[in-house]
Amino acid sequence: MPDEVRLQVPERILLGPGPSMVHPRVRHAMSQPVLGHLDPRFLEIMSEIQEHLRYVFQTQNKMTIPVSGTGSAAMECALCNFIEPGDSVVICVNGYFGTRMCDMAARYGATVRRLDKAWGDIFSFEEIEAELQKGPTKLVAIVHAETSTGALQPIEGLADIVHRYGALLVVDCVTSLGGVPVKVDEWDIDVAYSGTQKCLGAPPGLGPITVSERAIEVLRNRKTPVANWYLDLSSIEKYWGNTRTYHHTAPISMNYALYEALQMVREEGLEARFARHRRHAEMLWNGLEEMDLALHVPLSHRLPMLTTVRIPEGVTDMEVRSRLIKEYNIEIAGGFGELAGKIWRIGLMGYSSRAENVTLLLNALKEILGR
Amino acid sequence: MPDEVRLQVPERILLGPGPSMVHPRVRHAMSQPVLGHLDPRFLEIMSEIQEHLRYVFQTQNKMTIPVSGTGSAAMECALCNFIEPGDSVVICVNGYFGTRMCDMAARYGATVRRLDKAWGDIFSFEEIEAELQKGPTKLVAIVHAETSTGALQPIEGLADIVHRYGALLVVDCVTSLGGVPVKVDEWDIDVAYSGTQKCLGAPPGLGPITVSERAIEVLRNRKTPVANWYLDLSSIEKYWGNTRTYHHTAPISMNYALYEALQMVREEGLEARFARHRRHAEMLWNGLEEMDLALHVPLSHRLPMLTTVRIPEGVTDMEVRSRLIKEYNIEIAGGFGELAGKIWRIGLMGYSSRAENVTLLLNALKEILGR
Repeated sequence: MPDEVRLQVPERILLGPGPSMVHPRVRHAMSQPVLGHLDPRFLEIMSEIQEHLRYVFQTQNKMTIPVSGTGSAAMECALCNFIEPGDSVVICVNGYFGTRMCDMAARYGATVRRLDKAWGDIFSFEEIEAELQKGPTKLVAIVHAETSTGALQPIEGLADIVHRYGALLVVDCVTSLGGVPVKVDEWDIDVAYSGTQKCLGAPPGLGPITVSERAIEVLRNRKTPVANWYLDLSSIEKYWGNTRTYHHTAPISMNYALYEALQMVREEGLEARFARHRRHAEMLWNGLEEMDLALHVPLSHRLPMLTTVRIPEGVTDMEVRSRLIKEYNIEIAGGFGELAGKIWRIGLMGYSSRAENVTLLLNALKEILGR
Repeated sequence: MPDEVRLQVPERILLGPGPSMVHPRVRHAMSQPVLGHLDPRFLEIMSEIQEHLRYVFQTQNKMTIPVSGTGSAAMECALCNFIEPGDSVVICVNGYFGTRMCDMAARYGATVRRLDKAWGDIFSFEEIEAELQKGPTKLVAIVHAETSTGALQPIEGLADIVHRYGALLVVDCVTSLGGVPVKVDEWDIDVAYSGTQKCLGAPPGLGPITVSERAIEVLRNRKTPVANWYLDLSSIEKYWGNTRTYHHTAPISMNYALYEALQMVREEGLEARFARHRRHAEMLWNGLEEMDLALHVPLSHRLPMLTTVRIPEGVTDMEVRSRLIKEYNIEIAGGFGELAGKIWRIGLMGYSSRAENVTLLLNALKEILGR
């Protein structure tokens, strides 16, 4: 160990909506020496990251890369590359992240046709098709796992409808990837993106994205330049593809973390990882229901990695969360938007999804709530 | 130490244009446990990072933050927040990064008035003023330390001229910050930005930016929304400022690295750091000249942290660089654009700026070139 590191931070039990806890292996990967962004060894690591990402996205898409920003940058990347001024887009809003997509799409000159549902509900394919029937649509954007509500939106089968109307299907998988199946090829998704700090188990800082051939075709046929330099996929692709043309300096250490985290996903195996997320979620749900706490989302479309629980009458949101962090070192989150003050959000993502964390949280809540 | 980290990378001697080597203290800071992005301890770290950044930028600017992307994202942030469609901007181009600013500014709808000089030259204030006299100008953008050429552009005194014409002064300090003086307040710069992977001594991944009150006023008076969600300073400011409103999840571990690197800058002191960069640069220049190698930029405006040396007749660029990396484990870089195949770029930045690195490189070059 070198001269003493000045920065000291406590180790928290992170059971909020992300970032989730990061396994020491992944954290220590970041402390390896920095390589040049064109170093032969780094180029190898890049290729391996792309292979690993194809595995978790369950895709053969050539254009599968980590965007050099957080999941929000990946969201913007997924929109700005496929929207040209005047394009009409359909955005499904049943929580905060749908709202954010509307904001982004509008900044790129899109005519936004916003479909709204209550926060916690999901969309039926009929509702989406009814909107598509109204006129030409460039793309349909929808959130797979809404971190603000805890709802899991079914995606399988949606692409057939969207493609029938000549549109692209863009799916936000920030919270779902690595925790529940995201079958990009089988479901025929055109653009899927995620973040590193949820079920993939790396720190926040990169935004994996994968792009289908159909979407690449749309990108190639743009009439205007992408109105964003940093997130221009055609340029980024040249660095991540064969030519290795410099675009921006890759965040080397963050890519180390992503490499190691994805390596751990492969060691565990996707199916085993999904089962682990499900098992600990069920443990949590049973425990909460035994305390007579109501879950916000029905079992049929409830996320395993992010549980929303209604705050009981007479209980003060912040008081409980403050005690959790002060007395038990546990972070959970409150709701926001429509659900502010009404729910808690409990995340069991990636390395945070462990039986001991569930047991600890349930007992802490029992003590605090006196149930 | 936990289960063995799978990722293994060699430790290179990084003497290119960045990333520079990263001190073990900084690398190990990244391996600390991840905190939530609203954790009280992380909020403290954010405030300390802002204080440290004000120190290195030599400013009191309230809006001084690390953008959650690399230096290129900070460049885009510095332009997109202050440009509205139809604005006329003057961009000084004497190397690659000026060219990139033209590309970015055009994407945001600016009318770009591009001033060109040979790669390696610098601009006189008269040349810039002559352009300003031609018509209304929203901003003037210029690169302080051109990493593609090795030239140091004088900035002191320029703001008076730019402000007289009602424009903002935007300065690219990606390579200069932490290596030569960047006196944001004294020089009256409106927007200055940098990257973490050069003279600040952290890995690539964040882009520090500082914004004057005059520029904030321009931001507040925009008629159109910023055409970029991720880099919208008004929103980012709410998270880094007092309200702590969620915008995107901060790259926690990268901020740890930046904190530790800035802490080390403060421990060394800015003046001592500048002197160190200068001392090792002079060692390098003397050694290269003793070998009869010609430096591309005259002493009067030569960068201390990035030296460009002309490749002698009959010597093959890639052959020398390949031998340096294979036989001596040293990375240097070639030129690009106008200077491709004509120069080598040797960086002595941050933790890479050490006497032993200079001695090693000079002797390696002597052996390879037979001089």
